[in-house]
Amino acid sequence: MADFIDFYFDFSSPYGYLASTQIDNLAADLGRTVNWCPILLGPMFKATGSAPLADIPLKREYGLHDFARSADLFDIPYQQPSDFPIGTVTAARVTVWLRGHDMALAGKFAKRIYADYFASGLDIREPTVIHAAASDLGISISDLDVAVNDQAIKDQLKADVAAAMERGVFGSPFIFVDNEPFWGFDRLAYIRLWAQKHNI
Amino acid sequence: MADFIDFYFDFSSPYGYLASTQIDNLAADLGRTVNWCPILLGPMFKATGSAPLADIPLKREYGLHDFARSADLFDIPYQQPSDFPIGTVTAARVTVWLRGHDMALAGKFAKRIYADYFASGLDIREPTVIHAAASDLGISISDLDVAVNDQAIKDQLKADVAAAMERGVFGSPFIFVDNEPFWGFDRLAYIRLWAQKHNI
Repeated sequence: MADFIDFYFDFSSPYGYLASTQIDNLAADLGRTVNWCPILLGPMFKATGSAPLADIPLKREYGLHDFARSADLFDIPYQQPSDFPIGTVTAARVTVWLRGHDMALAGKFAKRIYADYFASGLDIREPTVIHAAASDLGISISDLDVAVNDQAIKDQLKADVAAAMERGVFGSPFIFVDNEPFWGFDRLAYIRLWAQKHNI
Repeated sequence: MADFIDFYFDFSSPYGYLASTQIDNLAADLGRTVNWCPILLGPMFKATGSAPLADIPLKREYGLHDFARSADLFDIPYQQPSDFPIGTVTAARVTVWLRGHDMALAGKFAKRIYADYFASGLDIREPTVIHAAASDLGISISDLDVAVNDQAIKDQLKADVAAAMERGVFGSPFIFVDNEPFWGFDRLAYIRLWAQKHNI
């Protein structure tokens, strides 16, 4: 859909978090809004024979340094989570559920959960943390609890991850503008250059 | 050495090539010159359990697209080599030899060889290609032929690669400014931001 920027992200991805703080502005500058697409990197890392940056010798040290430095260079609040990376399937399912009926609300929830994890030091696997975020955004806790246990939502997330991989997504953040793929927080600047060159 | 930017690169690295066209200007803007440090990614990929981007499912397609697109966005000539990646030990040895007595000349040679491979479609494993580059830069072909077969030069390159890994280098390009590490062509912009923040 031409009005969207497709923003694929895993809630345990530091560069995904950094991008989540900038993507609304970038989309607005391009006359778009954000299509918030939660994914899970686990199945993607299997396909590429890859692993979380923090699990790879040499890259781990650099990565931990670069996460915080990148945040600092762009004036984004950042606090390295002590438990990292973690499984984020519940937050992803909530976002899948929300995007089914209110994309803007899904975006607000995603940004809040990301900030909870990477800026506020909260454990976003905890139902209390998910509930607090939802409650602050006026989302019904009881509806949310039903949704995260709904087989249709679980299946939808799996299908979304499979479709993303089919489309070429293998990391987070991964962004499409008119089917042009961009991987990484550092590609936000490239998107602006690319859009200029293509009169978008 | 505070007057240098340390620029680690593998001659088969597209992002290393792209960076080689910009690094002199970046260094000059920071009041530095470039310390040209050829490396070989093979041993580094072994240490990190990684592989050339072009050998990884999903990443390959994206990588080939992003090499050319990145070049285009920064107006750098680029032509994807058909034989890629390749072993580049000879060009690396020549650069090791040159940097031992003339760093500026080593830089000129490195930039020429990179452009031969990624812009002119030449096979930089070929002695004729190496010789032509050297000849155009006023480098003695007979001295060069002795140097690339000199055990001391071979050992020096191995030692340089080991020392680079010891310092945390695991990819190309990899740049240090005052021991601050930056990985990737996309980090050139970050170096400028970082230098501003640190009054360099």
